[in-house]
Amino acid sequence: MANITKKVSWSSRADESGAAGEGTPLLNGSEKRRHSREPSGGGAVFQISRLSTADLEEEITSDEESVRGRPKEIPHNEKLLSLKYESLDYDNIENQLFLEEERRMSHMGFRCLEISRWVVCGLIGFLTGLIACFIDIVVEQLAGLKYQVVKENIERFTEVGGLSISLILWAVLNSTFVMVGAIIVAFFEPIAAGSGIPQIKCYLNGVKIPRVVRLKEGPMIHSGAVVAAGVSQGRSTSLKRDFKIFEYFRRDTEKRDFVSAGAAAGVSAAFGAPVGGVLFSLEEGASFWNQMLTWRIFFASMISTFTLNFFLSIYHNNPGDLSNPGLINFGRFENESVAYYLYEIPLFIAMGAIGGLLGALFNVLNYWLTIFRIRYVHRPCLQVMEAMLVAAVTATVSFTMIYFSNDCQPLGPEHTEEYPLQLFCADGEYNSMATAFFNTPERSVRSLFHNQPGSYNPLTLGMFTLTYFFLACWTYGLTVSAGVFIPSLLIGAAWGRLCGILLAAISASGSIWADPGKYALIGAAAQLGGIVRMTLSLTVIMVEATGNVTYGLPIMLVLMTAKIVGDYFVEGLYDIHIKLQSIPFLHWEAPATSHWLTAREVMSSPVTCLNKVEKVGTIVDTLSNTSTNHNGFPVVVQGATSEEPAKLCGLILRSQLIVLLKHKVFVELARSRLTQRKLQLKDFRDAYPRFPPIQSIHVSQDERECMMDLSEFMNPTPYTVPQETSLPRVFKLVRALGLRHLVVVDDENRVVGLVTRKDLARYHMGKHGLEELQLAQT
Amino acid sequence: MANITKKVSWSSRADESGAAGEGTPLLNGSEKRRHSREPSGGGAVFQISRLSTADLEEEITSDEESVRGRPKEIPHNEKLLSLKYESLDYDNIENQLFLEEERRMSHMGFRCLEISRWVVCGLIGFLTGLIACFIDIVVEQLAGLKYQVVKENIERFTEVGGLSISLILWAVLNSTFVMVGAIIVAFFEPIAAGSGIPQIKCYLNGVKIPRVVRLKEGPMIHSGAVVAAGVSQGRSTSLKRDFKIFEYFRRDTEKRDFVSAGAAAGVSAAFGAPVGGVLFSLEEGASFWNQMLTWRIFFASMISTFTLNFFLSIYHNNPGDLSNPGLINFGRFENESVAYYLYEIPLFIAMGAIGGLLGALFNVLNYWLTIFRIRYVHRPCLQVMEAMLVAAVTATVSFTMIYFSNDCQPLGPEHTEEYPLQLFCADGEYNSMATAFFNTPERSVRSLFHNQPGSYNPLTLGMFTLTYFFLACWTYGLTVSAGVFIPSLLIGAAWGRLCGILLAAISASGSIWADPGKYALIGAAAQLGGIVRMTLSLTVIMVEATGNVTYGLPIMLVLMTAKIVGDYFVEGLYDIHIKLQSIPFLHWEAPATSHWLTAREVMSSPVTCLNKVEKVGTIVDTLSNTSTNHNGFPVVVQGATSEEPAKLCGLILRSQLIVLLKHKVFVELARSRLTQRKLQLKDFRDAYPRFPPIQSIHVSQDERECMMDLSEFMNPTPYTVPQETSLPRVFKLVRALGLRHLVVVDDENRVVGLVTRKDLARYHMGKHGLEELQLAQT
Repeated sequence: MANITKKVSWSSRADESGAAGEGTPLLNGSEKRRHSREPSGGGAVFQISRLSTADLEEEITSDEESVRGRPKEIPHNEKLLSLKYESLDYDNIENQLFLEEERRMSHMGFRCLEISRWVVCGLIGFLTGLIACFIDIVVEQLAGLKYQVVKENIERFTEVGGLSISLILWAVLNSTFVMVGAIIVAFFEPIAAGSGIPQIKCYLNGVKIPRVVRLKEGPMIHSGAVVAAGVSQGRSTSLKRDFKIFEYFRRDTEKRDFVSAGAAAGVSAAFGAPVGGVLFSLEEGASFWNQMLTWRIFFASMISTFTLNFFLSIYHNNPGDLSNPGLINFGRFENESVAYYLYEIPLFIAMGAIGGLLGALFNVLNYWLTIFRIRYVHRPCLQVMEAMLVAAVTATVSFTMIYFSNDCQPLGPEHTEEYPLQLFCADGEYNSMATAFFNTPERSVRSLFHNQPGSYNPLTLGMFTLTYFFLACWTYGLTVSAGVFIPSLLIGAAWGRLCGILLAAISASGSIWADPGKYALIGAAAQLGGIVRMTLSLTVIMVEATGNVTYGLPIMLVLMTAKIVGDYFVEGLYDIHIKLQSIPFLHWEAPATSHWLTAREVMSSPVTCLNKVEKVGTIVDTLSNTSTNHNGFPVVVQGATSEEPAKLCGLILRSQLIVLLKHKVFVELARSRLTQRKLQLKDFRDAYPRFPPIQSIHVSQDERECMMDLSEFMNPTPYTVPQETSLPRVFKLVRALGLRHLVVVDDENRVVGLVTRKDLARYHMGKHGLEELQLAQT
Repeated sequence: MANITKKVSWSSRADESGAAGEGTPLLNGSEKRRHSREPSGGGAVFQISRLSTADLEEEITSDEESVRGRPKEIPHNEKLLSLKYESLDYDNIENQLFLEEERRMSHMGFRCLEISRWVVCGLIGFLTGLIACFIDIVVEQLAGLKYQVVKENIERFTEVGGLSISLILWAVLNSTFVMVGAIIVAFFEPIAAGSGIPQIKCYLNGVKIPRVVRLKEGPMIHSGAVVAAGVSQGRSTSLKRDFKIFEYFRRDTEKRDFVSAGAAAGVSAAFGAPVGGVLFSLEEGASFWNQMLTWRIFFASMISTFTLNFFLSIYHNNPGDLSNPGLINFGRFENESVAYYLYEIPLFIAMGAIGGLLGALFNVLNYWLTIFRIRYVHRPCLQVMEAMLVAAVTATVSFTMIYFSNDCQPLGPEHTEEYPLQLFCADGEYNSMATAFFNTPERSVRSLFHNQPGSYNPLTLGMFTLTYFFLACWTYGLTVSAGVFIPSLLIGAAWGRLCGILLAAISASGSIWADPGKYALIGAAAQLGGIVRMTLSLTVIMVEATGNVTYGLPIMLVLMTAKIVGDYFVEGLYDIHIKLQSIPFLHWEAPATSHWLTAREVMSSPVTCLNKVEKVGTIVDTLSNTSTNHNGFPVVVQGATSEEPAKLCGLILRSQLIVLLKHKVFVELARSRLTQRKLQLKDFRDAYPRFPPIQSIHVSQDERECMMDLSEFMNPTPYTVPQETSLPRVFKLVRALGLRHLVVVDDENRVVGLVTRKDLARYHMGKHGLEELQLAQT
């Protein structure tokens, strides 16, 4: 129960922000100067998401470009907490302007607002579905092209000899595709390492996170979020167009709600799992949940699946048939193999445990790899080269495996293989190893789930699992857009099917119950659960993707077991990557043993406060102080006599002050120019989300002597806690209401400190009890 | 924007509580004196739930018995808000004792606690599954017996003539069953009118509600909750046994979490829908949601389905086959009829609209009926008679319908009818109307879903819908244990199938796509959605119950349409009943147009405050003041000089004060008897949930002069808001954190008022804008 002393470390802050303030504590949360964005480029596929990315991204205005140039900086580390991430302002700023607007609005007005929320959600769903459809078709075409070329080449050289040329062709094709992706990511979207899910997780958690472009299932979730952020604001800053609609939604509160709808729509489109999508959003962001929002999110998910189904049905020349699931289609489990028996439950649980173990191994390996990458592979050209290397190695290994495999299977008339490779097999047969390697992973998964018993021999599956496991582990975290869902499913399906085959072999009457497809499904669930550690949403996603609820219970059991086993060793993959990026992520609850910490110990102090009527010069100086870069300022009112203490009377944000300065809302000017237009909420909304930096606002020497009356603009009722409040209690308040600043007051209502996200995220449960992370400018 | 003046009306308060305090405002929330419970009785089926009901019920100690005797009281009314319902103490009381206990606890201790939470959830799931299994078997046996007897009787008399005897037999049998149920409910569990779901809704919303025993699907949700409350407390007060386990869980916070797990387990067992169960709990109580809790709830649901499946598989002589869904089995939709096409979507939406209209009609009729019942049918014997009348009329109407129907269908060799009635049909044929009426509703639903096209003729379905609609509407709200789920499904399935048949008839190639079973399912969803207005959870429940995700999208669409259309006319059935019982139910958000109300206008004031060191006499007098019956008392500390204002320093509950008085924790005694055992948290837990009334605690005249030091026991960091806080902001805080008391302070931290549930629930959105409900002792 020793008291933790605060260790706050400051890295290369000074060389970024000039002379002042080295070693000064950064309180109130720090804010960065805004950089102008680089012009973007890249392939056609990426362009689309890129444009719509803008709105979500800009408000965060990453300093990544500058970070990249300074290798002296402390590298990302799981024992550090970065100071560069900000919280969203999820809490409404209920200042006079806001209240006046709300009070002016009629019952009808609120109803219209509610309807437009539904419309926006519908649009989000529709566009996400369209994008999913587009991505699906393009990927299918490209992959088809690639496999067709390689297949023809292999067939040509199989008899002639000189298959090494095919190998080279394959490797080069792979590398080229990857290179294009990697260059775009590495040079134009710098922090693209990892899948899109951790970023969405953080955003829903309330952290402003720079965003990147992804492909396939990570990307679908991400595209959904990006679309949501774009649509809901009714304007595109990249396209320099303002449609003058949905202006009411231009604040963090509304935006975050829409982004959660977008993420759900993305999951829904990727897996054809509308309920799973809602649950995904819920598992990640339930702190701000309410029923109306749930329904809107559900609506967006529904529309998204629907749109995707509709357009895909046209593409597949079967217009109007909506029974088509999402992008990642597991195929239907409809035969007799659906049933399962009590004695299989222990087997499922055992497989869950295996999945947990393998998942933990995967995560640990990937953790080491990521650490290595952070230290040594941080330059874009190195990153591109690594990505290309991985692509080439993947092709080589796959080719070698196929080459040395002699698992030939007869090719039935109604075979489902798209690119059956004959290679050295007899006529009418195909190489079974090639089904697994020489195919898009989605198709491989489907083959493993649905091919007839006997389509694979155990050795093939074993070898495949082994090689693919390491390849997938190496791939995740490259500077390309690649998720971990499909590879995990594929690994799991392979060893799951292997289990099924072995079980059938060791039991006499085995062939009836140990349907290998069923075990492939269980294995896939176990492996994915072991890596990402989602339970509820993943169960529903799997159930919706398989189109069958009977497996609900086994899948749940397996996912739970995998989570429990995996958690014993190491965290989930996404959490590892969030930690490695030093993001101040707030978990569901404060660490259990943190009751002995109080707000007094946790808070940042002293706090820069402003007076209710403050001199403009003071405000400008406070905002310009790069050493502190405060984001929220408690507003105090001095007592009548100087003896009486100053009492808290409100809270004002940096962004608000900047708008006020820009519009020169000074007391003196208001008196002299009576006709001056009163500042409205609209002015704040127009500036959202990219408020100009203080440096860009010119304040003359005369104006510095003017006064500013903040009372109309500050939030007059900020949430406060007494100093003695325990950390879990503070945590609960901040988490439940999505606060960015929580003012700590004494029993006379005087400001004594400020609690922000970093102050809370800093404490976490380590192996030896409560640990405190260091704050740093990573 | 007129200001609403507070109208607080006081009904027959004085004649209950004696002379004092007529017309005195009831602040801080009121608390009732505890009555000893009556000994319970009743049939075997009910006995089980009854025993376990106890723990959940007692803490609420209904005043219903006394209410029943006083018809002078203002009857329940949707424009009133009852003062007799209390909030749960969901917010942790973080007093010194609690913090000391938490700080003493090691990392390991918390882990054990977490494990025991999982164990409790497992137990809850197991027991709920067992009860479901038991209920299922008993109901099946009883219903089987009834139908067998009536069928034989009818068959005997069909040829002889004198079928009126069969009618009488059926009516008498029906009435007898109902009488037993009604007597138990009316005499021993007085507020049993309605289904179990509204009560669970309110409990999860944070209201303490007296509970009752139900059968079938309402009851399953309810039994789950009851089991949860019993198991998690590790003791049964009815059985007078304390197992000395799970003592840590003896507070509202933990109990409410477990109850939500129990409710989920109940849904899960009833419909074989574990995910649906979780979502049900979520839709009703998401304000206190977090991920670990979600997973525990999920676990409980899973175990519950699993247990039910396991035991039912044994009962059905197919041990080990776990593919069995829950109690209410819709059968599998596996044939070609599963597919649906784009052009069917408008049809589905139209059916959703019909469902919404019919649902609204149902709700309005039931609303009038309930008003009538509240006014005129409030005596138990009347209630029993009404129930018996309904049973007899149901039998008569059914019989008449069957009798006059001439819809004969051939009885195939593999027919699914359990009790096919031949009546006046030719040999080898059966009466189709009888399939619908002369069957348990579950079976009728299944027949409507799955019977071959042509099994019913349209006239039969139309007549059936019409009669069953009114019968169901009359039945709901009787003093028997009857839910609304199955009847709604049955009505909907009937008119849905009718739609399907008509569509097939009017379209030429209709027979292919307009599968009547599919339309029956859609109709069932529409009708149920129109009545209860759940969307997300109901979609998942329906999908899990049908075992097919393909219908997910249409069902969603239908439920949404039904909700939108229905909401235009009237609220959902459960909400109507909650309003009619004047329960202070907090919705998700404050009314949209309530921004112009502030805490100052909403709060109750003046507030009875206590000093940090208070005279025992004052405390006893405060607690004994029956006119106020405060439940929470802000604790203040006086300034050094009398001039300085008293500042808020904590909050203490009535229940805590009572324990303190009982243990005579007086400053003087502590000094004299140094060896006295220090009061521990355990003492509070042992008293939970039934704290004795103040009258039962004897305090001598000497003791009245003693002082009590509250500082160790009060919550030193209650949440506070400034007076100017807007109602929506106050609402959000109370709702998100599940607060029972929220102290309103001025800018000097002095107490100016107290906001409780009633102060917030009072404001609601009526037809003409914001309305304020009256408070009353209904």
